[in-house]
Amino acid sequence: MWKYDPPLRDMQFVIADVLNAAESWGAIPAFEEMDLDTAVAVLEEAGRFASDVLAPTNAEGDLEGCHWADGEVTVPEGCRTAYRQFVENGWAALACPPEHGGQGLPQLLNAAFYEMLPAANHSWTMYPGILHGAVECLSAHGSDTLKERYLADIISGETLATMCITEAHAGSDVSLLRTQAVPVADGADEVKVTGSKIFISGGEHNLTANIVHLVLARLPGAPAGNRGLSLVLVPKILPDGTRNNVRCDGIEKKMGLKASATCVMSFDGATGWLIGKPNRGLSAMFVMMNSARLHVALQGLGHLEAATQNAIRYAAERQQMRAVAHPDGVAPAPVDPIALHPAMRRKLLRLEALTQGGRVLAYWAGLLLDEHDHHPDADRRERGGALASLLTPILKSFLTESGHYGADDALQVWGGYGYIHEYGIEQAVRDSRVAMIYEGTNEIQAIDLLLRKVLADDGARLTQLEAELRQEIEACRSTGDSQLEPFAVALAQQLDQLRAISDALLANHAAGDSADREWPLRVADDYLKVAAYALLCWAWARSARLALPQAGSDTWYRRKFELMRFALDWVLPEVTPFATRARARDPLPWLPLEY
Amino acid sequence: MWKYDPPLRDMQFVIADVLNAAESWGAIPAFEEMDLDTAVAVLEEAGRFASDVLAPTNAEGDLEGCHWADGEVTVPEGCRTAYRQFVENGWAALACPPEHGGQGLPQLLNAAFYEMLPAANHSWTMYPGILHGAVECLSAHGSDTLKERYLADIISGETLATMCITEAHAGSDVSLLRTQAVPVADGADEVKVTGSKIFISGGEHNLTANIVHLVLARLPGAPAGNRGLSLVLVPKILPDGTRNNVRCDGIEKKMGLKASATCVMSFDGATGWLIGKPNRGLSAMFVMMNSARLHVALQGLGHLEAATQNAIRYAAERQQMRAVAHPDGVAPAPVDPIALHPAMRRKLLRLEALTQGGRVLAYWAGLLLDEHDHHPDADRRERGGALASLLTPILKSFLTESGHYGADDALQVWGGYGYIHEYGIEQAVRDSRVAMIYEGTNEIQAIDLLLRKVLADDGARLTQLEAELRQEIEACRSTGDSQLEPFAVALAQQLDQLRAISDALLANHAAGDSADREWPLRVADDYLKVAAYALLCWAWARSARLALPQAGSDTWYRRKFELMRFALDWVLPEVTPFATRARARDPLPWLPLEY
Repeated sequence: MWKYDPPLRDMQFVIADVLNAAESWGAIPAFEEMDLDTAVAVLEEAGRFASDVLAPTNAEGDLEGCHWADGEVTVPEGCRTAYRQFVENGWAALACPPEHGGQGLPQLLNAAFYEMLPAANHSWTMYPGILHGAVECLSAHGSDTLKERYLADIISGETLATMCITEAHAGSDVSLLRTQAVPVADGADEVKVTGSKIFISGGEHNLTANIVHLVLARLPGAPAGNRGLSLVLVPKILPDGTRNNVRCDGIEKKMGLKASATCVMSFDGATGWLIGKPNRGLSAMFVMMNSARLHVALQGLGHLEAATQNAIRYAAERQQMRAVAHPDGVAPAPVDPIALHPAMRRKLLRLEALTQGGRVLAYWAGLLLDEHDHHPDADRRERGGALASLLTPILKSFLTESGHYGADDALQVWGGYGYIHEYGIEQAVRDSRVAMIYEGTNEIQAIDLLLRKVLADDGARLTQLEAELRQEIEACRSTGDSQLEPFAVALAQQLDQLRAISDALLANHAAGDSADREWPLRVADDYLKVAAYALLCWAWARSARLALPQAGSDTWYRRKFELMRFALDWVLPEVTPFATRARARDPLPWLPLEY
Repeated sequence: MWKYDPPLRDMQFVIADVLNAAESWGAIPAFEEMDLDTAVAVLEEAGRFASDVLAPTNAEGDLEGCHWADGEVTVPEGCRTAYRQFVENGWAALACPPEHGGQGLPQLLNAAFYEMLPAANHSWTMYPGILHGAVECLSAHGSDTLKERYLADIISGETLATMCITEAHAGSDVSLLRTQAVPVADGADEVKVTGSKIFISGGEHNLTANIVHLVLARLPGAPAGNRGLSLVLVPKILPDGTRNNVRCDGIEKKMGLKASATCVMSFDGATGWLIGKPNRGLSAMFVMMNSARLHVALQGLGHLEAATQNAIRYAAERQQMRAVAHPDGVAPAPVDPIALHPAMRRKLLRLEALTQGGRVLAYWAGLLLDEHDHHPDADRRERGGALASLLTPILKSFLTESGHYGADDALQVWGGYGYIHEYGIEQAVRDSRVAMIYEGTNEIQAIDLLLRKVLADDGARLTQLEAELRQEIEACRSTGDSQLEPFAVALAQQLDQLRAISDALLANHAAGDSADREWPLRVADDYLKVAAYALLCWAWARSARLALPQAGSDTWYRRKFELMRFALDWVLPEVTPFATRARARDPLPWLPLEY
């Protein structure tokens, strides 16, 4: 039956071998007490929380769902119990700043932790999911009073936070937001908020006594559009202990994430306080959003891991038909495990290759954020920020798609049982779907990558990323081992391809009035995929190179190397259609607008 | 909000223009009363049943689900009402043989009908979905007594049928089936059936008074494996009006199709009668299975159509952000319909191209079956059977995948609303998923295509199909219109590619002991996709050629031609990875078998 085994062995390989995190930590004073042994110990303990406490609440939470009555929301009891344990054991504070009671652990380890949590119970993870983003946002932009009042409780998990952006008519287009914030006096920080927000995860629940809403709203006379949005903190319970005028009007009946309350929230002159400057709410919110986007990428990775490992276990048990070939040491039998059948093997190996490559990339983003935040060398800080800003939209989009479509593909391994609730995989398919939408749809991520990152700085950050990745070609070749040459060749091809497509788009961007302004918008999705496969190819090459020395003597490393080789032959060809389309200049026909 | 508009205009284009059905009907005495006007009238009436009677029951049936208590199953009331109307209006009998009370309409029209029904309510369609297969099976193999007793009632819809194959340990591998059938006397047709079957769609319900189960079981002393299976008809109500010893022990909690009762059935010495010869049950059942597989392909097509048309309507209404380009006659506005945004247009156009290409192929299979069954010319009968046998696994697999992944992709158009039940698309994603599994998983379809069809006759049927498709290259070129040249080029490329890959696999197949026996099994999924895109390319080319003459004067034809052109540029490149992998000879690593 469905269970979750934290992939500690592979996490350790990525952190220790592939990313060589110990070297980074050694150079960063904030992490001077961190070493690999400590990291492994933290992840083992976190893994026990995920597998023993959280995972058992997942299926029952899906069946039970959340209940709304008269403005109050009740979450499944198992989720409540797990949340108490999360707070009491200090997990909430893991990567939060020590000056407010956090444990100050690296984002890299927090990334591994936030891979585990949604893999065990994605719904539950929605409640604390915004926690780190809220802490960052409040730390960076909040007044001392607000920090004093709320930060410690958010970090401990005693108070949960929400991000209130979407309104019914304003989804991807936040410039259309209408919620009003009226200062109680001229120039006052305190405002009265009025408006209605939808899709607010954890807008109401019975997990914590207080809930702090971070709300995008407009001050009177604010400019229209994005530059007229301010960020306001609106607590459920006011400092004097009374209920604020914010209310949950209902929860959504969703495809999945049924244990996560997705709330319609109405603010009726609710008291709040500005965070940051008037009309600069979006940039304050973006601090939160970027952190949230990496967390969403990790949700995708968690689903991919959980679906893959459960499918592999099931395939080893389930016996149907004879296989035509068998591994050494396995005798042919009248009926073989389906794990021996090629149609299942190729599917499962592909999912493993995506999972393991995706893990390298997601954790790398965590490490880059750590360097951006804490490295003593300004160049390293700049590099960390620049590379992480490119990686974030790619990982958000690619890993959420891989998580959802990976779970959907894995379902096939169970045959008819896959369609039945009790086997677990159909819930994973439903739960994983929303990650392709929230925190900016995957189409918005692609536009963010190509238009706001690659074209916006005329390819500067892209060139920086490319140079980093190209180093792996030489690293593979310098080993002198011919088994790594196919990786070097493939990586060079992928980077050349990304470069050629980028150059064409950059040239068009620089063409001024003669530019085809729609072209980047037509191919942004394809461009993101081309970049994602280039990154995956780098992750596979690097993993192969670092696994190879021990592949002769150790089964774990041999499997790793074989899998990376499989990835080149069987998975990498998937990039071709994206590259073909990204290059193409064909205009798109129009759709009918009237019915 | 979600609704279903039968795509009558495109159905008519496919039937009349692309397939030139009138010519076929003119040559077939059984259809001498059929013409295009009659066909259109039937489809209009059928469309009203689908959109006005059936579609309104879909969302409510999903919420209500089926209820099991003490062996009885209650289906949602809306489904019951719709079913009575289906029977009373004679829809059940549409394509059944006239000699037993059917209306004898062509399979081609029945295909259009069975595209509409699941598009309107897939769950509901599961109840009569097996009807035509059961009629074919009973007509071909049943004793006169059984035909006399059951055929008319099945054709009228007063009695529903089931197909009882799967047992808990025997899914794709039916050779493992254990259910026993013991003759009441030596050589008697009457048997007592004992065993347990799972995943029986409509195994119990309150739609009809009687239910007829077609059960695969083993006679005493029957050989092990597939050649020891017999087919038995087991009614719920015996001819004397008493209940038979067959009982529904429960219904499954599924991802979707919640208004369709998926039953666990136990047979405890239940009375039944053999259909066909002892131990030849599988071939009798296959008559039913092939018909069922085409119906499943049509379910995929129906989902694709419903998801696409609803997403296009939503995209025309929903306004977010400014578009950078606008069609002639549409003034730029501060906020534009998302149908103008390239990221949405490309997605929706792709779904339209798959839908319209898939419709040509699915209806062609219907026409080929009609010719196989009824054409006076023996060569045409043989051709119809040969081509339909190749098309069936391709369409079952490709259209069910396109239907599910198409609905899943369309969900993105709704953004966050897509994840909410009331918008309809998330139900389409859940409902469509199972079609990739039942009636032979899509992996089994791929093996069926490559091993049991293409390799089994040394490529004879494939060569026949290729010759048919190649005619379109010349047809495009003979128009002298340069706008069709890209279609001719693309189709030639696709067919050359399919031929090269097929030749390599055929050569390996012919290599005897030196053959790589696992190769076809490793690449069967890819091979099926290469064949599917070649067929799609043919359908797009043919549609483009037949639309072009009126594209200058008629908007409908102009959109058709533009869409087919889009399909070449934006969709056809998707075949490349499948072609690359199908050619490759790389072995697959093994998966671990122990945990």
